[in-house]
Amino acid sequence: MTIAQTLTRAHALRQQARLGQLCGHTSGLAGDHVQGNLVILPKAHAQDFARFCELNPKPCPVLGMAAPGSYAFPDLGEDIDIRSDLPMYRVWRDGVVVEEVPDVRHVWQDDLVSFVIGCSFSFEQALIDAGIPLRHVQQGKNVPMYKTNRATQAVGVFQGPLVVSMRPMKPAQAIEAVQITAKLPRVHGAPVHIGHPQDLGIADLGRPDYGDATEVMPDELPVFWACGVTPQAVVQQARLPFTITHAPGAMLVTDLLNHQLMAD
Amino acid sequence: MTIAQTLTRAHALRQQARLGQLCGHTSGLAGDHVQGNLVILPKAHAQDFARFCELNPKPCPVLGMAAPGSYAFPDLGEDIDIRSDLPMYRVWRDGVVVEEVPDVRHVWQDDLVSFVIGCSFSFEQALIDAGIPLRHVQQGKNVPMYKTNRATQAVGVFQGPLVVSMRPMKPAQAIEAVQITAKLPRVHGAPVHIGHPQDLGIADLGRPDYGDATEVMPDELPVFWACGVTPQAVVQQARLPFTITHAPGAMLVTDLLNHQLMAD
Repeated sequence: MTIAQTLTRAHALRQQARLGQLCGHTSGLAGDHVQGNLVILPKAHAQDFARFCELNPKPCPVLGMAAPGSYAFPDLGEDIDIRSDLPMYRVWRDGVVVEEVPDVRHVWQDDLVSFVIGCSFSFEQALIDAGIPLRHVQQGKNVPMYKTNRATQAVGVFQGPLVVSMRPMKPAQAIEAVQITAKLPRVHGAPVHIGHPQDLGIADLGRPDYGDATEVMPDELPVFWACGVTPQAVVQQARLPFTITHAPGAMLVTDLLNHQLMAD
Repeated sequence: MTIAQTLTRAHALRQQARLGQLCGHTSGLAGDHVQGNLVILPKAHAQDFARFCELNPKPCPVLGMAAPGSYAFPDLGEDIDIRSDLPMYRVWRDGVVVEEVPDVRHVWQDDLVSFVIGCSFSFEQALIDAGIPLRHVQQGKNVPMYKTNRATQAVGVFQGPLVVSMRPMKPAQAIEAVQITAKLPRVHGAPVHIGHPQDLGIADLGRPDYGDATEVMPDELPVFWACGVTPQAVVQQARLPFTITHAPGAMLVTDLLNHQLMAD
């Protein structure tokens, strides 16, 4: 497939979402395209949130931030309209979901600032491409995620624990996965922990805070990455009067390709 | 210290060794200079040994190989005479050490082929520079080394188990150490294993096959690297009529600097 064709593919997925034809999750739909988490906040909170992401780059790697009121992301994709190009949105008021809708033009305001944040789909594709199997993908489940005993660096109302995702691997695969993901700092980068869940305050791997439990075999190690659920949990906990996020799994598909996120 | 001064330092250490003034180990003497293991074999076995190293690059990363009879390594250092510039040598006959001497000119033959093989001193310095403490260094001990249940790729008489060295680390340090050593493929590269000694056939970390035992704390992981003792064990086991190696810890100090071994 040529780059022109894959660009068309990303563009086509956004168009389908815009037209309401695609309203489910985007896992596995976008090939080598970078997908992103979405957080939209009123301008009054945007600067603090931007600073929060800057201080917490592993869970909150910002791929793009729009000017107040702008719904375009020219660096992430031709013709993006962030108000309609994701399959499904959540509208939050005072920390509670009040709507789950395929379009947010009806609640758009000129003071809203949109953030697109890197997502683990990108590094998972890189791991699979390297021949490292991911059990939750093989089993068609969501990755298990855990709140940890590690606090993020707080900024104003934005604060809370680091959330991590866990993937069980054989030791040699874990070593390779460190090397691969270290080259992808804009999608969470290298793992934050390997091997001792209790050091992260995780008492029972079988009971994740988000996602589905995944077995760790005796010859495997649990490998933990900073997770994009962290900023969502933080925003939820901040109980802002108004926010918009993507619905779980229903990501922005960008024109960027995963290898373009590779660090030197 | 300027590069000219550090070159002088490496050259000075070799001169001291040549003159018999330096005859002990070189650990900690050579700053940021690359140090190397030495294996010298008759030409009849050199090609098989070169191939063995090629097939087993993690334990046997060849930094230099001389032409038969040659004792110079211009790529590794100005004016090197491999017969005299290491502090101490072992002369082997039929797999047994018959001499431990500071100079091997008296047993030199025109059919001898010399190999200089990368050594973990280089990556240990890189780890220490990154703020990762190494317990065996802090305690002034030798690193613990273990024969594993993994066979090297055999070539002719050259065969035997992979030997690994072990360094205990906290998980976050282990993740950083993977990234640092992955950039140093010419001195063993990334670890071969983390966390499950029994998978390598190591029943008791407290009883290493070479070096000194080092405690692993409950919040640490044992991290295992391919070890330069592997080729020495293989050569010893091959029971060649005649070989020369460095004496343990008494390495060739080269003009190369560790950062020059960094991969892209």
